[in-house]
Amino acid sequence: MTSGLLLKEMRDTNPLVQCITNYVAMNIAANVLLAAGASPAMVSDAEEAGEFAGIAHALTVNIGTLSAPFVEGMQAAIAGTQAAGKPWVLDPVACQATALRRRVSAELLALKPTVVRGNASEILSLAGEASRGQGVDGRDGVEIAEAAARALARQTGGVVAVTGETDFVTDGARAVRIGGGSPWMPLNTALGCSLTGLCGAYVGLGGDPFEATVAALSHYAVAGRQAHEGASGPGSFAPRFLDALQALTPGALDAGAEVTVLEVEAA
Amino acid sequence: MTSGLLLKEMRDTNPLVQCITNYVAMNIAANVLLAAGASPAMVSDAEEAGEFAGIAHALTVNIGTLSAPFVEGMQAAIAGTQAAGKPWVLDPVACQATALRRRVSAELLALKPTVVRGNASEILSLAGEASRGQGVDGRDGVEIAEAAARALARQTGGVVAVTGETDFVTDGARAVRIGGGSPWMPLNTALGCSLTGLCGAYVGLGGDPFEATVAALSHYAVAGRQAHEGASGPGSFAPRFLDALQALTPGALDAGAEVTVLEVEAA
Amino acid sequence: MTSGLLLKEMRDTNPLVQCITNYVAMNIAANVLLAAGASPAMVSDAEEAGEFAGIAHALTVNIGTLSAPFVEGMQAAIAGTQAAGKPWVLDPVACQATALRRRVSAELLALKPTVVRGNASEILSLAGEASRGQGVDGRDGVEIAEAAARALARQTGGVVAVTGETDFVTDGARAVRIGGGSPWMPLNTALGCSLTGLCGAYVGLGGDPFEATVAALSHYAVAGRQAHEGASGPGSFAPRFLDALQALTPGALDAGAEVTVLEVEAA
Repeated sequence: MTSGLLLKEMRDTNPLVQCITNYVAMNIAANVLLAAGASPAMVSDAEEAGEFAGIAHALTVNIGTLSAPFVEGMQAAIAGTQAAGKPWVLDPVACQATALRRRVSAELLALKPTVVRGNASEILSLAGEASRGQGVDGRDGVEIAEAAARALARQTGGVVAVTGETDFVTDGARAVRIGGGSPWMPLNTALGCSLTGLCGAYVGLGGDPFEATVAALSHYAVAGRQAHEGASGPGSFAPRFLDALQALTPGALDAGAEVTVLEVEAA
Repeated sequence: MTSGLLLKEMRDTNPLVQCITNYVAMNIAANVLLAAGASPAMVSDAEEAGEFAGIAHALTVNIGTLSAPFVEGMQAAIAGTQAAGKPWVLDPVACQATALRRRVSAELLALKPTVVRGNASEILSLAGEASRGQGVDGRDGVEIAEAAARALARQTGGVVAVTGETDFVTDGARAVRIGGGSPWMPLNTALGCSLTGLCGAYVGLGGDPFEATVAALSHYAVAGRQAHEGASGPGSFAPRFLDALQALTPGALDAGAEVTVLEVEAA
Repeated sequence: MTSGLLLKEMRDTNPLVQCITNYVAMNIAANVLLAAGASPAMVSDAEEAGEFAGIAHALTVNIGTLSAPFVEGMQAAIAGTQAAGKPWVLDPVACQATALRRRVSAELLALKPTVVRGNASEILSLAGEASRGQGVDGRDGVEIAEAAARALARQTGGVVAVTGETDFVTDGARAVRIGGGSPWMPLNTALGCSLTGLCGAYVGLGGDPFEATVAALSHYAVAGRQAHEGASGPGSFAPRFLDALQALTPGALDAGAEVTVLEVEAA
C-alpha cells in the first residue's frame, strides 16, 4: 500500500534527482525518470556538482564509465548532499572488474550511501565475497547474494537492493523479494542504471528509504511485466516500458506488485 | 510559405551542423537532425572544434553537461564559426541553476549568438529576471518570458526563441507565436536540446535567421502534433516523432504550421 | 554457412566486447551487441582500459568524439589487447575531416588493427586517396573504395570492411560484397559505429577474422532488411532492427545473407 502512496507523492512533487551516471545510461535514465514522474538532472562536474546537490532532492552515483573527473564530481556531490541532509544512492557498476573500480567503489561505500543497488556479482564483490561476474554483467543469481546484502546493509546502516530476475531488498533487518519484470530487460542496456535513478526519485521524497526502494523496484517490475505483453523483442520492449512507467497508477502499482515479505533476521 | 521553401532547401542540401551538446542529448539530437534532413557532427574538443567550424554550415552550443573541456571547445568553435562568417545557436540549459552556468551562459551570450533557444526560465534568467525554474526544468510559462525575449534579442542583435506549450520567436522587432507539439514532448529528455540542433540546420541555410527559426520550430511542432496521434505515452511517441520529422513535406509544413504573427513592437 | 555457425557460437558464449566508442554511439552500440548476443562494456579510461582488455574477448576503437583522454585510453587498451593476443577493430570516424583525426587515425592504423570498418570516404582517406566526404558523412560510393580497401588490407595484414548500400570486405586476397539492409539505416545515427561493435563480437570468437567480419555484416544486413518491412521511417525502424538482430536464427542468417564472392585478386 505504501508504494502506491509514494508514487502519488512523486507525481505530485516531481522530485529533482541529480544523476551522476555513465554515458551509456544518461539518456535512458533521464527518460525513465521523466516517465515515472521525477525530474532528472545530469550534473556531474566537480565545479558545480556540490552546489547543485543543495537544490536536488536526492543524488545518485553510478561508476559505469569511470574517470578521474567523474570521481571528483562524485565526491563533491556526495559532500553537498550530506551537508544538505539529503539521501543518495550508489550503483557500483562492475565494481569487481578492475583495480580502479574496486578502489573507487570501496571509497564510495565508506561514505555510507542511503541505498546501494547492484546486481548479485556487484553486491557479492562489495561485501568482500567471490563473484563469477565478467565485465559489467552479473553472472550470479540474486539468491546467492542475499546474505551478502544483509551484511552490507548492516555495515552501511542503509538499504541494499540486489536486482535480477527476482529482486531482493534489505535494510539489514527487514527484507523482501520482488518479482515481475521481463526477460527483455537485461537485453536493454542501462536499465539497471536507470533503476538506480528511480530509487533516487523515491528516496528523494524523504520517507523511509527501505519502503522507498521497495516502491521503486515494484514500479519498475510491474511496468516491465506490463510492457512485456505485446513486445516482440528488446527493441519493441523499450518504448512500451516507458509508456508503462508513465501510465502506472498508484492503485495498479499496489495491486500488481509481487512483493514477498521475508522473516526478520536477527543481526 | 517560407518555412516550406526552407525545408525543401534543407532536404536538397543536407547542411552540416556542428553540435556541441550535452551527453544526454547527443544521440537523440543526431537522430532528429538526420530525420529532418540535415547532417549532424558532434565535434567539441578544443583541438579540432575551431577547424571543424570552418567546414560546417552552422554551430550549436548547449551547456547541458558543462565542464572546463566543453567550455574550451565551445570557445574554439565559436571563434572558428565567427571567422568563417557562419551562424551559431546558443542553448543555455539550466543557466539559472549554478554559479558556473550563470557565468558561462553570460560569457557565451556576450559573443552574440545568431539565435538563442531556451525555455522560459532560462530566457528570464539570461535577461536578468527572476525565474521559478528548478534544476533543468522550466517552471515558468512561455508567455511571461516574452518581454524578456524581446529585450534579449535587442541586446544580442539576434533571434530569441522561447519554447514550451506555445513557442515565441522574436528578433526584437518581429515576433510570432507557434502552436502544436504534444504533451509527451516534455517527458522525452533532450527534445529541447535537439530542437536547438534543428535551429542550427535551418539557420545554416544562410537566409534570414528569424524565418529560419520559425521554420525549425514549425517543423518540430507539426511533426510533434502528428506523432501524438496513435502514441500511448512518451515511449511510443519518440519513434513516431522521428518518422514524422522525416515524412513531413514542404507543403504539409506550410499547411500545418500554427503560426500567429504578432504586432511589431517599437524598440 | 560459416556465418550461421559463428552466430550460434556467439549466442552460446556471449563474448565480452570492450568498446571505446563515441558518446553518440554508446547506448545504441550496447543495445546492438546485447540484442545480437554479445556482452558490451564501455571501458575507455586509461587507468583501467588496458587491464580490462585482458579480460575482454575483443576490443573496438572508434574515434567519433575524439579528445586527449580518449586517445590515451585507446592506446592503453590496444596495448592490453595485443599483450593478451586478442583481436581489435578500428572505426576511423570522419578521419578525413580534421588534422587531429588524420593524425590519430594514422597512428592507430600503424598498430595494425585486426579489422578496419569504415565508410568509403574514410577508407579512401586512410589509404591516402582523395574523398568527397564532408563532416562525418560518407559521400563516396562503396564501389570506388574497393581498390583502396584491398591496398589497406595488404598494408595492415588485417581485414578491411567498407560499408554502405552494399558492403565490401577484403583481407587483401579474398573479397566479398554483401547486400541487404535498409535505406532507414543511414538516417539512424551511429549504426555504423554499432556495426563496428558487432564486428568486435564476431572476431572475439577467435576464428578467422575475414569470416567473422562477413558474419557480422551479414547479420546486420539481414536484420536490417527484415526490420525495414513494416517500418514507416527511421524512428519506427530502430526498435524493429533490435528485435530482428535478437530474433535472427543461424539458419535464417545463412538463408538470408546476400553474399557475393569475388575473384581472388593477386597481390
